[in-house]
Amino acid sequence: MAGAAARLARSSLSSLAARRPDLIPSFPPSPPPRGFSKMADSVESSGSGALIRVLFCGPYWPASTIYTKEYLQNYPFIQVDEVGLKDVPNVIQNYHLCVVKNQRIDSDIMAKASQMKIIMQYGVGLEGVDVNAATEQRIKVARIPGKTTGNAVSCAEMAIYLTLGVLRKQKVMDTAVKLKDLGIPVGDTIFGKSVLILGFGAIGVELAKRLRPFGVKILATKRNWSSDTLPCDIDELVDKKGGPEDMYDLAGEADIVGIVDHKFLSAMKKGSYLVNIARGRLLDYDAVFDNLKSGHLGGLGIDVAWTEPYDPEDPILKFSNVIITPHIAGVTEYSYRTMAKVVGDVALKLHSGEPITEVEFVN
Amino acid sequence: MAGAAARLARSSLSSLAARRPDLIPSFPPSPPPRGFSKMADSVESSGSGALIRVLFCGPYWPASTIYTKEYLQNYPFIQVDEVGLKDVPNVIQNYHLCVVKNQRIDSDIMAKASQMKIIMQYGVGLEGVDVNAATEQRIKVARIPGKTTGNAVSCAEMAIYLTLGVLRKQKVMDTAVKLKDLGIPVGDTIFGKSVLILGFGAIGVELAKRLRPFGVKILATKRNWSSDTLPCDIDELVDKKGGPEDMYDLAGEADIVGIVDHKFLSAMKKGSYLVNIARGRLLDYDAVFDNLKSGHLGGLGIDVAWTEPYDPEDPILKFSNVIITPHIAGVTEYSYRTMAKVVGDVALKLHSGEPITEVEFVN
Repeated sequence: MAGAAARLARSSLSSLAARRPDLIPSFPPSPPPRGFSKMADSVESSGSGALIRVLFCGPYWPASTIYTKEYLQNYPFIQVDEVGLKDVPNVIQNYHLCVVKNQRIDSDIMAKASQMKIIMQYGVGLEGVDVNAATEQRIKVARIPGKTTGNAVSCAEMAIYLTLGVLRKQKVMDTAVKLKDLGIPVGDTIFGKSVLILGFGAIGVELAKRLRPFGVKILATKRNWSSDTLPCDIDELVDKKGGPEDMYDLAGEADIVGIVDHKFLSAMKKGSYLVNIARGRLLDYDAVFDNLKSGHLGGLGIDVAWTEPYDPEDPILKFSNVIITPHIAGVTEYSYRTMAKVVGDVALKLHSGEPITEVEFVN
Repeated sequence: MAGAAARLARSSLSSLAARRPDLIPSFPPSPPPRGFSKMADSVESSGSGALIRVLFCGPYWPASTIYTKEYLQNYPFIQVDEVGLKDVPNVIQNYHLCVVKNQRIDSDIMAKASQMKIIMQYGVGLEGVDVNAATEQRIKVARIPGKTTGNAVSCAEMAIYLTLGVLRKQKVMDTAVKLKDLGIPVGDTIFGKSVLILGFGAIGVELAKRLRPFGVKILATKRNWSSDTLPCDIDELVDKKGGPEDMYDLAGEADIVGIVDHKFLSAMKKGSYLVNIARGRLLDYDAVFDNLKSGHLGGLGIDVAWTEPYDPEDPILKFSNVIITPHIAGVTEYSYRTMAKVVGDVALKLHSGEPITEVEFVN
């Protein structure tokens, strides 16, 4: 990952912070306030020890580790380590805070995490975490709310990028450039389409806001529309709302679909486009493959795949109307710096004993 | 271009028409109304002859020819030909209507066009047409207004695609997929940026409307802001307006720039992104190259190049933060079908002698 780290270092030179310092948290944070040693004492006396150890699992999404280390660089009593996926079970007993990324934390690994206080995610889901086992071990499991960190904004922008890439036939454009063609291929517009967003949460809201002026009809499903996680002007954003049970009916109306489960494809209109920025397993591989082959599916844009990292030689990637990105929907300077601050502040509060309010606990 | 034609035939299977027939013109048009032979007589007597011949110059943007032929397929008295760029001067005397694409029509070629009534463009500029020579030859020069045909909508969507592609580092993403990386690269968001649109016309309006909910500051220059080609709510779309003389000042505020001339780059902020969907020659090649090399320019996304088609091996395309598309900003099923109808209707009116109102004459 040396190359990746070098690329990241370069990319942070042109960071958003340099351009719009008002938009993201100050970095690194201010030095500890006076009286800090007292707080440290109080933690020590609470039994967690002076050193707080933070474990980042595995080499992927490397900016999560790098940015958190940078945020915490003036706090020698917080130690941040990145550990390979295979080694996590052997060292997890040494850590107080864990950022799982794509590590699976089952009950066996959880049982070893004898000093662990909090297991958390960095902009993605908690599928790999056995929450019941965590609860039994008195370990809290937390997620960073996407709507406050820029994760939802970043993911919504990525969904639009993938949608436009599929509609404009990104691979055919690349081939046209190489063949010195001009004005080929004829693409398709977002304008005039119906977009179905399955699972209308924080990302769905940001996506619908941005799609609105493109001239689209927006359909969406959600388990509970009365949830107070959504803004009040939902009727201005969504033309047609449904529950999970309506997804097959709504599929017949849509040209572009946000995410999809395995029985969904045949209900979609012929030539529709499918974009997935949620979880790779939401799509049934064989069904997607068959529908691409038959032409029933007009195109596929995915940021997440069935296994990750995904085999670049997989036959599904050979279709000219399929594009894939390396699971970076939420990975932007803006959201990653903001989330590094959240993780760093949680680590600092574990040390000081202050209440932790930056994250949503799920157990 | 056989391969291109085949690809287009396939692409039209999934046309917008099939999905939203209400959005685009009926295709092909209704058969001639009763009394049509009378109109034909009147044209014959006006001296233009019964057969109207339409010339499409060169093989590029092939859908323009194909869609116009399809639109006119029930009118045997309109003949549509595509002629190679080198052959245009030798046959232009046989044609009444000409769609120039990237053909240069200088005074020598114009002098040969003895039967020509109208020279027009298909969604792009008229740079290659010597309008003064046309006026001397009593040939009308016309453009299809972008705001009514979907050309501006298509171009605005493409500008957002290129912007997101540059911000998310499209080439680095492709490399990451091949190397089985995940969560690399760290991209940048449109959110929080200042976008400068140089030359705020029909495309600029559509672009600003779509960028607004992304959370941006929009700066724009235009020669005449009082022009009635713009909608009234311009102050809601644009945060800071300027004339052409303000472009260097505004460049210092912007993170993303629409189009740019050759003296502009050094006035831009370090790490800014440049997107060009207008004309390739608006960018000074050496200045762009040098600023990419030094890192002053953070990325470049272009749909138009210095020569077209552009050499795919050109060194500027080797930068990892440069992406190029094959001049297809306006090339969508929606805009191309609509423009085919305009060209077809102009040809039909040349035949019938009816007044031509679908296009804007520039001489």
